[in-house]
Amino acid sequence: MNAEPASTEEPSSAVQNLEHHECWAMLRTVSVGRLAIVVDGRPDIFPINYTVDGGTVVFRTGEGTKLSGASGDSPVALEADGVDPSTGMAWSVVLKGTSAVVRGTEEVLDTARLYLFPWQAGHKDAFVRVTPDSVTGRRFKVTDPLTWWTQHSSAAKSSPE
Amino acid sequence: MNAEPASTEEPSSAVQNLEHHECWAMLRTVSVGRLAIVVDGRPDIFPINYTVDGGTVVFRTGEGTKLSGASGDSPVALEADGVDPSTGMAWSVVLKGTSAVVRGTEEVLDTARLYLFPWQAGHKDAFVRVTPDSVTGRRFKVTDPLTWWTQHSSAAKSSPE
Repeated sequence: MNAEPASTEEPSSAVQNLEHHECWAMLRTVSVGRLAIVVDGRPDIFPINYTVDGGTVVFRTGEGTKLSGASGDSPVALEADGVDPSTGMAWSVVLKGTSAVVRGTEEVLDTARLYLFPWQAGHKDAFVRVTPDSVTGRRFKVTDPLTWWTQHSSAAKSSPE
Repeated sequence: MNAEPASTEEPSSAVQNLEHHECWAMLRTVSVGRLAIVVDGRPDIFPINYTVDGGTVVFRTGEGTKLSGASGDSPVALEADGVDPSTGMAWSVVLKGTSAVVRGTEEVLDTARLYLFPWQAGHKDAFVRVTPDSVTGRRFKVTDPLTWWTQHSSAAKSSPE
């Protein structure tokens, strides 16, 4: 299974790495990301609604979910992305670190003050803070920006005969 | 389906599980997802551009990337989501399974025939197929559908007061 086909160096030329401050700036432009966690050695992934809070990211989740279980300094990876349809430039930022449930009245009060869109209209009462070890980002050209954000028509799926 | 217009106290009632066929139908409506893998026991996550292919999902990636490394029957989780701004109903589908690089001329040719948007304008020549063990999906009301897909203004980030 380790067949190594063609080395196609140079995909990098189309990809720009983002500076650290650019990563944070991009993270602040959207509020929905996806969080990856490891459960029994296998990856799991969830959409989350987050807010940047001073070098960390905070999100809300329902009690008793896997995410509130992803509490005790669990390793996590959070990805957010977006695209500028006018330029066709997309970006993707990945934050790797650990997550912990926000505890203690003061910290919760602080966190509750954050502007957090509930990504789901149910009752949410756990806040989880992700403290990053690393934040990396890339900017790249997408051939069809619309396919990034919008649901595309069936034309996209029909196999070209 | 059992369209239940969300009571705000019961998170469960606000969330509908999708039927298996609905999950696949939703997966076909978009082309961008995020793939979670495990690297050295820690999660990593990448945006991918995928296509549904007969009960599997196929995506392209650059050679030499971590994703083409996520080849030998690695456990993966793929998530895709979307929202209908007119109804405020969002959906999220998670496919868990294993990924393997597509090898062999015939299989590659078959796969290349699939309509795949290159999510990045660089040279891409590895195809990875994700074969699911499980596919689950949920539909839920979002309080502000726009925050799902669009970049929101700075109003969302400015801390109150």
